[in-house]
Amino acid sequence: MSITVSEQPLAPAGSAVADDIGRLVVSCQDGPGIVALVSAFLYRHGANILQSDQFSTGSRGGRFMLRTEFHLDRVSERLPLLERQFEFEVARRLRARFRVRSAATPTRVAIFVSRHDHCLLDLLWRARRGELPIEVVTVVSNHPDLERDVAGFGTPFTHIPVTPRTKPEAEQAQLDAIAGKVDLVVLARYMQILSADFLDEVGVPVINIHHSFLPAFAGASPYERAKQRGVKLIGATAHYATEDLDEGPIIEQDVVRVSHRAGVGDLVRRGADIERAVLARAVDWHCADRVFVDGSTTIVF
Amino acid sequence: MSITVSEQPLAPAGSAVADDIGRLVVSCQDGPGIVALVSAFLYRHGANILQSDQFSTGSRGGRFMLRTEFHLDRVSERLPLLERQFEFEVARRLRARFRVRSAATPTRVAIFVSRHDHCLLDLLWRARRGELPIEVVTVVSNHPDLERDVAGFGTPFTHIPVTPRTKPEAEQAQLDAIAGKVDLVVLARYMQILSADFLDEVGVPVINIHHSFLPAFAGASPYERAKQRGVKLIGATAHYATEDLDEGPIIEQDVVRVSHRAGVGDLVRRGADIERAVLARAVDWHCADRVFVDGSTTIVF
Amino acid sequence: MSITVSEQPLAPAGSAVADDIGRLVVSCQDGPGIVALVSAFLYRHGANILQSDQFSTGSRGGRFMLRTEFHLDRVSERLPLLERQFEFEVARRLRARFRVRSAATPTRVAIFVSRHDHCLLDLLWRARRGELPIEVVTVVSNHPDLERDVAGFGTPFTHIPVTPRTKPEAEQAQLDAIAGKVDLVVLARYMQILSADFLDEVGVPVINIHHSFLPAFAGASPYERAKQRGVKLIGATAHYATEDLDEGPIIEQDVVRVSHRAGVGDLVRRGADIERAVLARAVDWHCADRVFVDGSTTIVF
Amino acid sequence: MSITVSEQPLAPAGSAVADDIGRLVVSCQDGPGIVALVSAFLYRHGANILQSDQFSTGSRGGRFMLRTEFHLDRVSERLPLLERQFEFEVARRLRARFRVRSAATPTRVAIFVSRHDHCLLDLLWRARRGELPIEVVTVVSNHPDLERDVAGFGTPFTHIPVTPRTKPEAEQAQLDAIAGKVDLVVLARYMQILSADFLDEVGVPVINIHHSFLPAFAGASPYERAKQRGVKLIGATAHYATEDLDEGPIIEQDVVRVSHRAGVGDLVRRGADIERAVLARAVDWHCADRVFVDGSTTIVF
Repeated sequence: MSITVSEQPLAPAGSAVADDIGRLVVSCQDGPGIVALVSAFLYRHGANILQSDQFSTGSRGGRFMLRTEFHLDRVSERLPLLERQFEFEVARRLRARFRVRSAATPTRVAIFVSRHDHCLLDLLWRARRGELPIEVVTVVSNHPDLERDVAGFGTPFTHIPVTPRTKPEAEQAQLDAIAGKVDLVVLARYMQILSADFLDEVGVPVINIHHSFLPAFAGASPYERAKQRGVKLIGATAHYATEDLDEGPIIEQDVVRVSHRAGVGDLVRRGADIERAVLARAVDWHCADRVFVDGSTTIVF
Repeated sequence: MSITVSEQPLAPAGSAVADDIGRLVVSCQDGPGIVALVSAFLYRHGANILQSDQFSTGSRGGRFMLRTEFHLDRVSERLPLLERQFEFEVARRLRARFRVRSAATPTRVAIFVSRHDHCLLDLLWRARRGELPIEVVTVVSNHPDLERDVAGFGTPFTHIPVTPRTKPEAEQAQLDAIAGKVDLVVLARYMQILSADFLDEVGVPVINIHHSFLPAFAGASPYERAKQRGVKLIGATAHYATEDLDEGPIIEQDVVRVSHRAGVGDLVRRGADIERAVLARAVDWHCADRVFVDGSTTIVF
Repeated sequence: MSITVSEQPLAPAGSAVADDIGRLVVSCQDGPGIVALVSAFLYRHGANILQSDQFSTGSRGGRFMLRTEFHLDRVSERLPLLERQFEFEVARRLRARFRVRSAATPTRVAIFVSRHDHCLLDLLWRARRGELPIEVVTVVSNHPDLERDVAGFGTPFTHIPVTPRTKPEAEQAQLDAIAGKVDLVVLARYMQILSADFLDEVGVPVINIHHSFLPAFAGASPYERAKQRGVKLIGATAHYATEDLDEGPIIEQDVVRVSHRAGVGDLVRRGADIERAVLARAVDWHCADRVFVDGSTTIVF
Repeated sequence: MSITVSEQPLAPAGSAVADDIGRLVVSCQDGPGIVALVSAFLYRHGANILQSDQFSTGSRGGRFMLRTEFHLDRVSERLPLLERQFEFEVARRLRARFRVRSAATPTRVAIFVSRHDHCLLDLLWRARRGELPIEVVTVVSNHPDLERDVAGFGTPFTHIPVTPRTKPEAEQAQLDAIAGKVDLVVLARYMQILSADFLDEVGVPVINIHHSFLPAFAGASPYERAKQRGVKLIGATAHYATEDLDEGPIIEQDVVRVSHRAGVGDLVRRGADIERAVLARAVDWHCADRVFVDGSTTIVF
């Protein structure tokens, strides 16, 4: 007689998150009593802290950062009031920057890509599975190659060609395509350098994946240079894009071992797996409000 | 003025492999002179060794295994003759089992899957990129869920429902669907146990991915049991399927760190990344003739 | 002309920790307002929270655990009062178990060992460097082999032979050697099973290092069995010792990749590096009050 | 009744290696028939190949490298003859460089160190355990701090102070201390830059451990710079020392994950574990004739 294994249920989709988890992130100058103040506020307003992380860059004169997940029934509809109350009761006193939102609200994302598909497809696939708390509003590419793949996910695809001569107009078209519609831009192996003007205008954070273990091999052709230098590990780095190319605050990095047998083509292939994994983690953490920028570095809770 | 980074060329597709690389695998009882015999044969027939691995389970009475990649112009058309010559000049003398083939010939694969898409999609995507030396002949599933995804890759999809009562007929239908058409069956999270009869009849190796770090948590619900036991790492294991469930020779394993914060659902999600990576490596190595079975273990060159 | 690199200062010794960092650990049934209550207490008594971790096994009816590091001048001399105040003002209300102590006070440790030196020497070396917040009070061994090595660290060494017949007396001698003098017993490859009576009597936690990736290969000869099973990774597990051999709550685990080329002797050698690393981390975390036992599992902050 | 676990035997000491394993390393311009020629030579002289690795940097005009371990009774006493025969029968024909030696002959090593003990002690400890195929002839230091630790291992310790003014004389004293007595110099966190003259004169390879993941953070204070740059992994690199500081061929690298919580002191401590592990592996591989230098890179079998 044959035996049938009971099949494990599929992972629950992210879209099914009930609307009773809120997230509060706060940053201010460090000093005594901040946690007491914030936790008393949440208690007073009926929120039960589920998880909390905090970090200070120095107990005197440093910067204090806090991230709290709390339970509160129907948190979305209570957000506007809660926000005003926190501003009035806590933030003014601490001169703090803060943000409060429902964990059920996905981050709206535009993905920029050129012709490499691995990072793009991994993000789209994870979003569809409910693994990433994002809604991919549009994919923008300077090449038409990946249009069909993107269509398979039901996501809009905008092809905006870029040449050195037409770059200003192309960047304007990119800005028009995403203005007011997204909370985050992800450069998923987008092989054009965005101008300082674009970064200024876009008004939302931009996450880039660099195909090396920065600061090693910053700039172009990192795998070729890794091969020449004979390194034993290759890596990838997800960072916020800034005007200083490849110098923005690092969110996540990882590496993989390679041997002398691997040619440059093999490094490119092995690296692709690291790139997509590192970028997916960085996007996940950013969209879960886990990443705080502190000067040229990040704190990741 | 704007700067444009020159875009790195895409990784070359596997289908573009020129037909001048051959692979020879040999196994026999260990003894002196085997390497000399084999390498002299290749030299005599104009083949230049590019890479060679060998292993012996014991210098007296052990088993000797050898894998060689060699350069030989138009290797495919010369294979039939080369095979007869090796049989006559080397294999008989060593009482060796051997196989010689062109690296450009892909392995024909049937993928069995239930409803989890991660392993399946990763194999299809890698095959399309030319990262795996395989041709996916068909996808067989006991559920219709993944038909559309598979269609997007242009791969045939065969839906064969399985119930405890209809299992014998279902397995016969599966055998009919793949008989003579494939060199390998990959169970990419196929949640039915294949009968001993099926494994007997199928006539080609069957690779399974198990969602735990075997031998820990063999059997059903490994992530639940990993959570209960409080392990700090979870893993996945790719192995050849044998009659003894979860006991077949292990090809590849890997693990990922988890914390107390991760619930069972998180383990399932984190585990999915390890599962697809481990299975892709196992399939790659098998199809590149890198895996030798030695009793209940494997040698992987 | 020759150039001289300025030499990097050595890592500061742990013994130099100033007496102004305190640690508070609390566990109780989960419910609203706990963080507010604890943080208000600390603020009221002049303590500034430096770092805080918390976890709940379930927001309704689960177990809540909290660990806080705080700054408070001359914390050691203020501890007795602070402890009574916390008992009165917080712990009674929450029916909480708690512990407060100065980070500058090292944990007093007895290390039990047989003849393998790697875990023992690593702990002694890290303690001397100030890397572990411990004071090794004594080393107890059923063999005399390692006496000279231990003497080199200026640590007392007690040789207590154990045979099946003399085990009860030997265990009594062990208890006498450490009674009231230690806060922790570390089994650093101590190859005797401690009796239930011993574990009952000893009155302090006992940490063991097992030379496999539990629950795989529980029991004796794990490396031999790993070799036979053909696993691709071997590991080590640090856990609290309980009556159920190799079943105690796991504190830390790690693995290392091995190949078919490695014989059992190689696995033993490679494994030794993992064992000492895993044990050192587990001891560090335990002594820094980072480990909470929750049934058969642990929470590690 | 009490149960006693049978204790696992200790790893066999390296000094106990029987004198019947030889190693042959060959490098020459690539071309057809090399493996056939070498393996026929070994067969003819009664040697049975146990393990063999080879690599070519390109099948036409590239460099071919081969390493073979073989079984041959009383290999040490037969070496002089075997060497002459290989020169005459094989090496001249291939214009090859080669080396043949007994695996039982340890590499004679001088360890240079300043004040950090971790790499030094780990090498001495592994040598004593028989884990490294080396004989530490002497430890040379520009500081007296570690003399007592070294004495505990019965190894000679030579204190040669170095100041910018006395560096030439100091280097001459170092050369005098090791001339003709060692096959390898290991810089185990030796914080002085060796002059080009020293590297010229020393006549044996010099392996250095750099406390960063090169090429990132080459030069001084890598941990400080890693902290400033906010990298998520820190590493260490073992490489052959050349005139170009931190630019020599890399033998081995590894990394460990760090978080924002780790200060520079923590990075130094975590890094120490990686440094000693990476250096031990590099020394092991070099002394087992596994490392071939190819321009600015290495091939490691």
